Amino acid sequence: MRALLLLGCPEVPVQTGIALYIANKLKDEGFEVVAAGTPSAINLMRVADPKKAYIDSYIEIERCVDQMGEGKFDVDVSFGFIHKDSGIQYLATVAALSNGAPVAIVFGREAKELSNEVKEALDNCLVLWATAVHNPMELKKRIDEVARWASVLKR
Amino acid sequence: MRALLLLGCPEVPVQTGIALYIANKLKDEGFEVVAAGTPSAINLMRVADPKKAYIDSYIEIERCVDQMGEGKFDVDVSFGFIHKDSGIQYLATVAALSNGAPVAIVFGREAKELSNEVKEALDNCLVLWATAVHNPMELKKRIDEVARWASVLKR
Repeated sequence: MRALLLLGCPEVPVQTGIALYIANKLKDEGFEVVAAGTPSAINLMRVADPKKAYIDSYIEIERCVDQMGEGKFDVDVSFGFIHKDSGIQYLATVAALSNGAPVAIVFGREAKELSNEVKEALDNCLVLWATAVHNPMELKKRIDEVARWASVLKR
Repeated sequence: MRALLLLGCPEVPVQTGIALYIANKLKDEGFEVVAAGTPSAINLMRVADPKKAYIDSYIEIERCVDQMGEGKFDVDVSFGFIHKDSGIQYLATVAALSNGAPVAIVFGREAKELSNEVKEALDNCLVLWATAVHNPMELKKRIDEVARWASVLKR
């Protein structure tokens, strides 16, 4: 099984921590974890996980979308890390190209409004949200309520 | 050998990644790595490193200062993560109580001014700075220029 983490621009402090937290849970379930993002988002994750304890590999977002469109790359589940509209666009693009299930992790001050936009834009998307900016605990709680990510694949 | 990471409030996105990056280098050199901070700073690091791949243990900042003052706890080197004045205060307090060497990691939009303030406030403090907010690469470069942290102890 393979999971994709679609990282947004790293503007909101909780993103790095929450992405590593989810990656750890996925690895424990046997997923290969691939992170996709802009070069700056990828750089920040590489610096944060130098031993690849949590994230197995990285792919530049444009290349990821191209390869999915050509049928050369796919995943079982895609996590969109969303704190502004562009994050919804990334997840919607990947959801349209991938056979995997989409999951939206929505955070930042506009999380409530953005989570409603995600639900309108994407059918069958599990949406977890909290207005977290610096404190990850509420979002962590939402994540911990999902006992097994493999169950998301069967929705 | 034991190293202390003094985490500031997690307001600037690069802090989590840079702290984990330094922790990894310290562990590779044989340091035990302890992170100190406010409860919210500690929570964010715990979420980011759930397997303790990089950080061995945590201590609440007030308790850390109390125990250092009572001579019950000390470290060989203390890293202050500084993006505002309160970060300088933390490092200066710890430097006054500890026999270990202080190192200042200064980032954020006011990094240049803050790094000058650190140099004035703390003698013999190694100061590494970059105006990093989201992109950690310049600060990573400064960190990589220090070949071994154990060398800092002998200053």
